[in-house]
Amino acid sequence: MSVVAFVGLGAMGLPMSRNLVSKGFKVRGWDLSGKALDALAQSGGVRAASLTDAAHGADVLVLMVVNASQAESVLAQSGVLEALAPNAVVCLMATCPSGSVQNLSKLAASANRRFVDAPVSGGVAGAVAGSLTIMAAGERASFDAVEPVFNALGNRVFYVGATPGQGAMVKTVNQLLCGVHIAVMAEAFSLAAKAGVDLELLLEVMQGSAASSWMLHDRGPRMLQADPEVTSTVDIFVKDLGIVLETGKDVRAALPIAAAAQQLFLATSGRGDGLADDSQVIRSYYALNNAGSK
Amino acid sequence: MSVVAFVGLGAMGLPMSRNLVSKGFKVRGWDLSGKALDALAQSGGVRAASLTDAAHGADVLVLMVVNASQAESVLAQSGVLEALAPNAVVCLMATCPSGSVQNLSKLAASANRRFVDAPVSGGVAGAVAGSLTIMAAGERASFDAVEPVFNALGNRVFYVGATPGQGAMVKTVNQLLCGVHIAVMAEAFSLAAKAGVDLELLLEVMQGSAASSWMLHDRGPRMLQADPEVTSTVDIFVKDLGIVLETGKDVRAALPIAAAAQQLFLATSGRGDGLADDSQVIRSYYALNNAGSK
Repeated sequence: MSVVAFVGLGAMGLPMSRNLVSKGFKVRGWDLSGKALDALAQSGGVRAASLTDAAHGADVLVLMVVNASQAESVLAQSGVLEALAPNAVVCLMATCPSGSVQNLSKLAASANRRFVDAPVSGGVAGAVAGSLTIMAAGERASFDAVEPVFNALGNRVFYVGATPGQGAMVKTVNQLLCGVHIAVMAEAFSLAAKAGVDLELLLEVMQGSAASSWMLHDRGPRMLQADPEVTSTVDIFVKDLGIVLETGKDVRAALPIAAAAQQLFLATSGRGDGLADDSQVIRSYYALNNAGSK
Repeated sequence: MSVVAFVGLGAMGLPMSRNLVSKGFKVRGWDLSGKALDALAQSGGVRAASLTDAAHGADVLVLMVVNASQAESVLAQSGVLEALAPNAVVCLMATCPSGSVQNLSKLAASANRRFVDAPVSGGVAGAVAGSLTIMAAGERASFDAVEPVFNALGNRVFYVGATPGQGAMVKTVNQLLCGVHIAVMAEAFSLAAKAGVDLELLLEVMQGSAASSWMLHDRGPRMLQADPEVTSTVDIFVKDLGIVLETGKDVRAALPIAAAAQQLFLATSGRGDGLADDSQVIRSYYALNNAGSK
């Protein structure tokens, strides 16, 4: 399993594909952005001439695209699945609804290709460091075949079930916490700003207290900047919390906190900040509570 | 500053007072529970015969009682403040509303005693390990005088302002995150339970992913037990999130996520589980979503 076709060279995909290159995999990348393809080529990957060219004879097809619809358009493109090696495994690593993942796995099966559902957590920092958490589901033999790829991308690889879609379900629950942790941090900072608390000191206090979270460490500093670097956008959480709430609807579970959090991301996007860093959900709280930017 | 009167020997106060004893302070404890007094005496502390006896000539009076009303009844008891050494410092370490703290500091001042507002974070685990986060506010010289006491109780001691009440305000914001992190974890587990995810595996995955939080590590394992050991009760978060929402009302800040979280703790208490471990807020989600206990 040494030739990897890697589709989707964005903020997560590019550093992930580079880690595969540096661990000795032959990586053929594909993305609609020529700049992303150039960046991979500069790191020792192969710039494929087309999607089918990337797939040609590959042992593994990694999909790190934006959503299920993009993943479907890749797998449904004529000849792509058939171009893969006969025993190849399709690894869907993007965050998609569990139901869509099941459909995508059927698409792969219809071309006699194996499929593993393997979403990740750990953000751009984890993608760069090769320290992602990976939640994989699919037939055990398929998982075993691509485990070396996962070990090159993450340091916490979990086999969570034999049915594609089970990885997506774990990731959905994971994203419920991630999205709420960001939104509630913004709520806390807006209260503190109104009450005259020094926000930088507050962040330092809480990063080591019982209030601490992975997100407080990662997003906290950017949340206190007016226009920070973008590592993941507000619109990504509009999407991910949308998947959470759709899943809640499917299984009939009320999720009042996640629903409240999503409204804040949605409002941020609605005011035109959908492509800002997701920490900027705080702008909705500043608007709501007239707390001013710090 | 070597003689410490310690009032309130509960789940937090007892291990804190023991840490003071082990670091060489002379500790005179007071609590309404004789059992708690016995426990302190067995650890080398002094079992005071009365509140005034505990206070007599002490350099520091630590208040680790349940709420502001209990703190007031201690300080307002005839002769207690006057019994302290003339230059003594009252350290309020319980979680109280910022406004109440200001009133308590005036009570101390009326008897010419100094006052430092110093709430803590880190739970019973931090109290036992002496690794609490302490958020102290008061005159700088008063803080400096009691800093050795704080250093015996915690490993992250912050001076957050010169006015008593500022420590309470930082703690209030801290508790907003703590309470919501517990409630939303319960929400996530209830979704996972409905969706057929293995909750123990999910906990393990999320403890190392971007969904991780201090609370996920501390409360997560107890949340998956049907009737876990109680380290902090549901009713404590009914109180603490009540302080959060009152503070929001005072400064006119809408806190939609904290408000939703408090409703879940309130419902848990309302069904008769107020004295259960706060992780058992999950019972409200199981009731709400008919998710069954795992």
